[in-house]
Amino acid sequence: MFPVRVELGPRSYAIAAGGLADFGPFARSALPAATTALVVTDEHAEPHADAVLASLKAAGLPASMVIVQSGEDTKSLHWLAELWDELAELPADRRTAVVAVGGGVIGDLAGFAAATYNRGLPLLMVPTTLLAMVDSSVGGKTGVNLPQGKNLVGAFHQPAGVWVAVETLATLPDREYRSGLAEVVKYGAALDATLFAWLEANAPAVLARDSQAVAHVVSQCCQLKAAVVAADEFETTGRRAVLNYGHTFAHAFETVAGYGTLSHGEAVSIGMTCACYLAEHVARLPRSGDTLADRQFVLLEAFGLPVAPDLGWDIDALLAAMRRDKKTAAGKLRFVLPDRIGHAELVDDVPEVSVRRALTTLLPK
Amino acid sequence: MFPVRVELGPRSYAIAAGGLADFGPFARSALPAATTALVVTDEHAEPHADAVLASLKAAGLPASMVIVQSGEDTKSLHWLAELWDELAELPADRRTAVVAVGGGVIGDLAGFAAATYNRGLPLLMVPTTLLAMVDSSVGGKTGVNLPQGKNLVGAFHQPAGVWVAVETLATLPDREYRSGLAEVVKYGAALDATLFAWLEANAPAVLARDSQAVAHVVSQCCQLKAAVVAADEFETTGRRAVLNYGHTFAHAFETVAGYGTLSHGEAVSIGMTCACYLAEHVARLPRSGDTLADRQFVLLEAFGLPVAPDLGWDIDALLAAMRRDKKTAAGKLRFVLPDRIGHAELVDDVPEVSVRRALTTLLPK
Repeated sequence: MFPVRVELGPRSYAIAAGGLADFGPFARSALPAATTALVVTDEHAEPHADAVLASLKAAGLPASMVIVQSGEDTKSLHWLAELWDELAELPADRRTAVVAVGGGVIGDLAGFAAATYNRGLPLLMVPTTLLAMVDSSVGGKTGVNLPQGKNLVGAFHQPAGVWVAVETLATLPDREYRSGLAEVVKYGAALDATLFAWLEANAPAVLARDSQAVAHVVSQCCQLKAAVVAADEFETTGRRAVLNYGHTFAHAFETVAGYGTLSHGEAVSIGMTCACYLAEHVARLPRSGDTLADRQFVLLEAFGLPVAPDLGWDIDALLAAMRRDKKTAAGKLRFVLPDRIGHAELVDDVPEVSVRRALTTLLPK
Repeated sequence: MFPVRVELGPRSYAIAAGGLADFGPFARSALPAATTALVVTDEHAEPHADAVLASLKAAGLPASMVIVQSGEDTKSLHWLAELWDELAELPADRRTAVVAVGGGVIGDLAGFAAATYNRGLPLLMVPTTLLAMVDSSVGGKTGVNLPQGKNLVGAFHQPAGVWVAVETLATLPDREYRSGLAEVVKYGAALDATLFAWLEANAPAVLARDSQAVAHVVSQCCQLKAAVVAADEFETTGRRAVLNYGHTFAHAFETVAGYGTLSHGEAVSIGMTCACYLAEHVARLPRSGDTLADRQFVLLEAFGLPVAPDLGWDIDALLAAMRRDKKTAAGKLRFVLPDRIGHAELVDDVPEVSVRRALTTLLPK
């Protein structure tokens, strides 16, 4: 359980849990040298950000707030320039903490602004969605989208601390909560058969947002991700790539569908389904028996997640988007593919024909 | 002499010297995994970039080229977005080398695009100005300007190699060459009394761009900078800050004068003069005898560099610009100040009244 320690040498930090009202003292202890803070949030997370702002002030750290538009479109050069501008106007210096309060979009956008303003400001994260708690707030990836693809611009910038306030999930729309569960299934499918089985056994409690079940899920996922990130901080050894299980497909789906049509978690759910088909096509996963493909399909459906791509998608456009994905190297297609429950790895140079066949299975003409 | 090795653990690299036509083999050995290259240059350096492009192709590395507008205004969000767009259109992946051919503007802009596209592409640098050779191509600082100030956005991103081709200095305009000499004087004044005395004794050969004198100067400065950067890669211990001798003033001068009015080296020349006055005001430097202030003044003038700010500058505007400088911390004014020839250090919390007095000395009402 919490706190989860992310071990990255001089960039180590803690993921701790508690109420929003207790964030201030956590911030002070994580960043004793900070003299001011800029809270970055969006319209949806604003009530949580108000509580964070109040707790910072109560703890003696002067803070101001910027509220950006909600939605994936906000992860853009336009809003990045806006944040840089806000920081310049403060003016921010290296003792100004950037505090990201919101989902993955806010974490990525505010995190990249923090990574690049003055070549790096300290960052604290208060994720307010399940997806951000289990995924985007752990590991130091920050960035924005370009019209050509998601996350094409970014930096590795580890936070100084992450504060998980499960109370923020109470008001999360159902579709967003379920989207977060797609990443949770990913951890089980690609890294931990025990977690996968636990999710199968406890799906009703998880869906009901039972606070103990949620805390178990979030801390387990953070621990799994922390271990992978600690082993491969900059995604150089291939180890960290396992976290991208389902994501080469998902990014292509999001690009071709247009950002915002599918949620990220929904795209990942379909992507993991495709990855299983592809793993079967390249004979990494058996086609029958008590297979990951079948059990993952059932679990994703139990969580109310989509498991088939839109019939209107164009396979050539999807392949072009995959070739532009930053996980590709020298134009080769690379996928994280499972070979059993709880185990997946990066496979270099998957034949294009196999990808075409996997997509065609799901995209009948 | 060359090669100068910059020791940064896994990010170590070499600064080597040779002809432009020999760059290709150097690139292949520095980045054996690279499969393509994007050469970034500006209108002024285009002939050198053509030679670099040809040598890459001759060495078997397919490469393309982007030519941006010349000048400090190019270090902007607009041109940064252009480069990101070019990389997305290639499409670039992590085996695409970015090759910066030009002065400091190209190195900073192309370096920051490389630092942030796909969270980091490998970077090679071919500096074609004296300033870029001795300063901006060593140490991994990349970035762009905001309207509020210089280099407010950026990242640390070490190159995989730097190639010094002194032949490129032959066609450098006189004003630009002399601007580079300001940074050369900085190394002597702040770090190495032997270099300072050598410059005093060899000023005519340096000004005549004698190739042996130039090679001596460039390799000495690179070695001095490499040692400082190796001791403080991310500017956290204060050691690296010594390289900013004269620069708090210089950045303010450039901001208030408007980018492009003063060259960076000219601003640094005036800034070092101001820093000596300030060091005298705060009693770090004696006011009489064979002092740094006097000898530096004489050497800068011998190199044809300006030593007094524009009479029209507004002191309040300069102080506001200094407070926004990223070397300030929590609003305190910080300067690198000398106490003798060859030695300077970061001084925290210089009283504002001393800065006002130093500026007033040089800016009579």
